Formats: sequence, C-alpha cells, structure tokens
Amino acid sequence: MDPIEIIGLIAATLTTSAFVPQVVKTWKTKSTKDISLTMYSAFFLGTMLWLYYGYEHQSLAIMLANGITGILVIFMLVLKIRHK
Amino acid sequence: MDPIEIIGLIAATLTTSAFVPQVVKTWKTKSTKDISLTMYSAFFLGTMLWLYYGYEHQSLAIMLANGITGILVIFMLVLKIRHK
Repeated sequence: MDPIEIIGLIAATLTTSAFVPQVVKTWKTKSTKDISLTMYSAFFLGTMLWLYYGYEHQSLAIMLANGITGILVIFMLVLKIRHK
Repeated sequence: MDPIEIIGLIAATLTTSAFVPQVVKTWKTKSTKDISLTMYSAFFLGTMLWLYYGYEHQSLAIMLANGITGILVIFMLVLKIRHK
C-alpha cells in the first residue's frame, strides 16, 4: 500500500477515535457544562455530508470514518441534551 | 462546479467551523473540566497527518480544512492546559 495512503488511514483513525475518550469522560461524569452543543450539532451535520460525499465517491474510508464519528457525536449530543 | 464537490466543501466548512463555538465558549468561561485532553491531543495529531496527506495529494481543500482545524484545536489544548 502507498505510504501516503497509510498516513491517511492513520489520520482518519486518529480524528475518528479522538471522540472516544470524550464520550467515555462525559458518560462517566454526566457533566456537560463545558461542552458546546453548537459544536457537536455542526460537527454531526458535517459528518453526515461527508458520509454522502464518500458514498458518491465510492470511498469506503470516508464513509467508515464519518459513519463512526457520526455515531460518537450522536452519543455526545444525547449526553449533552440529557445532562444539561 | 460538480455538486458533489460543493457538498464536500460544505462538509469541510462544517467540520472545521464546528470548533469555533467550542473555542469561544471555553475562552469565555475559562472552564475546561468537562473537556477531554486526550480527545484534543489525538485530534490535533490527526489533523497534522491530514495536512501532510493533503500536501502530498496537492489538495488545497484538505490542507486548508485541517490547517484551520489544527489551529482551533491548539487553542482548545492551550485553554485546557492553562485552566485545569
């Protein structure tokens, strides 16, 4: 595999999995005071458009990365709305 | 311009600008208790790899989106470390 594509995969893994520790932290503390609802709403909308973009380009990497990020961001939105 | 590429640009604008309301909120409140340092560290590393990926692919869109996101994420890291 092209080394640049491997870098792209590592980059995608990092920017997707980055949300895991935030979800875990918020899940544990139930505290969302410092979390911006606007950020996660805009980010969710963005990942859904990326998902469509990936589908149109038949790019499994873009679809996978944004599908997983979208699910993690939904978790954050639910936690934020539930624990205002 | 191809409508799919316009969707990609809107997606990139959303996932990049999403960090602005979070930076503004944290800047105003100086409260970072609920923010995950691990999330922003991993996300920063990811954007830097995306920046390199964009450079190698000569993609101004990828470089621009991740360069701006990287700067916003640095702001969050500085705020998180300064206001523990």
